[in-house]
Amino acid sequence: MKTETIEAYLLELKPLIDKKIEEWIPRQYDAASMKFTLGEPRYENSPASGTKGVSEPIWEFLDRGGKRWRPALMVLIAEALGAKRSDVMDFVVVPEVIHNATLIADDIEDSSDMRRGKPALHKIFGVDVAINASNAMYFLPLKILMENKEMDPEKIKRMYDAFSQEMINVSFGQALDIIWHKGGFKEELNENKYLQMCAYKTGALARMAAKLGAIIADANDRDVEKVAEFAECVGVAFQIQDDILNITASENLGKEFGEDIKEGKRSLLVIHTLTKCDKNAATRLVEILDMHTSDKKILQEAIDIIKKYNSIEYAKSYARKMVVDSWNKVDKMLPENEAKRKLRLFANFLVERDI
Amino acid sequence: MKTETIEAYLLELKPLIDKKIEEWIPRQYDAASMKFTLGEPRYENSPASGTKGVSEPIWEFLDRGGKRWRPALMVLIAEALGAKRSDVMDFVVVPEVIHNATLIADDIEDSSDMRRGKPALHKIFGVDVAINASNAMYFLPLKILMENKEMDPEKIKRMYDAFSQEMINVSFGQALDIIWHKGGFKEELNENKYLQMCAYKTGALARMAAKLGAIIADANDRDVEKVAEFAECVGVAFQIQDDILNITASENLGKEFGEDIKEGKRSLLVIHTLTKCDKNAATRLVEILDMHTSDKKILQEAIDIIKKYNSIEYAKSYARKMVVDSWNKVDKMLPENEAKRKLRLFANFLVERDI
Repeated sequence: MKTETIEAYLLELKPLIDKKIEEWIPRQYDAASMKFTLGEPRYENSPASGTKGVSEPIWEFLDRGGKRWRPALMVLIAEALGAKRSDVMDFVVVPEVIHNATLIADDIEDSSDMRRGKPALHKIFGVDVAINASNAMYFLPLKILMENKEMDPEKIKRMYDAFSQEMINVSFGQALDIIWHKGGFKEELNENKYLQMCAYKTGALARMAAKLGAIIADANDRDVEKVAEFAECVGVAFQIQDDILNITASENLGKEFGEDIKEGKRSLLVIHTLTKCDKNAATRLVEILDMHTSDKKILQEAIDIIKKYNSIEYAKSYARKMVVDSWNKVDKMLPENEAKRKLRLFANFLVERDI
Repeated sequence: MKTETIEAYLLELKPLIDKKIEEWIPRQYDAASMKFTLGEPRYENSPASGTKGVSEPIWEFLDRGGKRWRPALMVLIAEALGAKRSDVMDFVVVPEVIHNATLIADDIEDSSDMRRGKPALHKIFGVDVAINASNAMYFLPLKILMENKEMDPEKIKRMYDAFSQEMINVSFGQALDIIWHKGGFKEELNENKYLQMCAYKTGALARMAAKLGAIIADANDRDVEKVAEFAECVGVAFQIQDDILNITASENLGKEFGEDIKEGKRSLLVIHTLTKCDKNAATRLVEILDMHTSDKKILQEAIDIIKKYNSIEYAKSYARKMVVDSWNKVDKMLPENEAKRKLRLFANFLVERDI
């Protein structure tokens, strides 16, 4: 598997994506960019306060990095379906900025202290600024749809529809995750329900990226849905891999080691363990998850139970199979080209990565 | 001024609006409404957890009431421009649900304890559920645009554009409000900048309601902007009246008496006082605002300073003039009809109200 190629591709794309984001969300607002973003003011704008309340927190967070894989997925899908990179580059801002917005909200909701090796945004700017920055990031990218005068309005409407549906689904995914973290409806939680939650929480933004890419390439609704399904599977597999890394990664990935256990997360790993292990182990694992403890020894105890029942291997092969199966479906519909070749490598990279 | 007529009109409309909201955001999710809202699940949906995480907090909040004046404004504008009430009734869900979403977020951001006479939503359901419910409420109403198959896609696109622009502006208004509450950029704050912040924070959702109503009635862009300007002025005047009531209302309005002072809010009242009063009074007023105290005696001291410099009368007449001037502009463009007659009464009601 030549994942290096895809890592190089992501690294090549990243500065171009960040430059595009900067065009739509400036690092510093002035009179002109305020007027462009908000319309003609009736009274008087306050660029300095706009910078302090909107740009600064957003860019502090975006500058922490991230793989920018949703924009890459969008570009590759659009190209594979016959669009040019330049047709799609403005729109990659949409899923990427929104993804970062959900991370900021997530950290407040989970009371997380750290993100990407730095204090969570609300720890630096306050909960008020962080929530509002996150909200602003949901809507600022829509300016790109609004200002596009070249595309057919019906095409823009399709993009808005894709945005809206996937944002609804993200918020449901998050709702389920929260309810289950809190230990609610434990009895109803099973593998399929967990995977559905991931499809909403993590899959939906991948779906959005794929749908936008395909719509830009003028794909019909059926093909849009096909690439969306593929992207959703990649997103879910990515999430499963994230869950695995959270308890196996030796190095610090920005998030704290074992934080998922501390948060009480009922991941695929946990659900699989609970169906396989004996009653004593199950009772103890649930007990630890409900403790919300930071005690490393106790967290390790939970991880040991999970490992004992081969849940890591199970989850890993589940994620792999998911990507292979979903790839086989789009493989048939996509014409052979360089973008398609990259797309296949890309899907594998996201599942096989160890970072 | 026969405000009773308008109060009766609002009371007549309210149950119809709430019924519409319920059609799009059910009080309880089942398999069918989950599928309608989220699309076909690949794995398995969890209606009980969806109800607990999404419906319950949203409806607990919506059931607290509110005047529902944004939907009323939307209906009246659409009718005044020639549309039928039935054309517009689905869409009134959009500004109303979003308005409530912003209140939920506001209360978390301001660490408010109470809203509409009950504990703030995050005090009941937790910050995690409340933030996410607020986010869900931004997007769930877009299902109405998405599912409409009768309207021309270009018309739907215009509605999405109106939604997007005003959501951006709301988030900027909130950003400025937060920065100034925190005492940032005190030196740049003046009457015009405060009014601009209100135009974004409170005016934008009124603008959204007006724009949607006018677009449904097939108004051209120029006329859409005219009614949007009127709605913005009504919104700002409403906010000024809210600020006045916060320090003059004898009865409890759900929010705590003097809470704006406690929060350090640089309202029009405060800004006017600071430009008129002597240096000692100014120093003391700013000192109290920066204290974020709950001490009733100290809050009263600030209110006494504000009253001494006739700032209440100033703000009141400012709001009145704003509504009259903006009414005069739309008066010329709107044909004479019953809806227009109500619209005029309505604007006055929002400014003259003492509740």
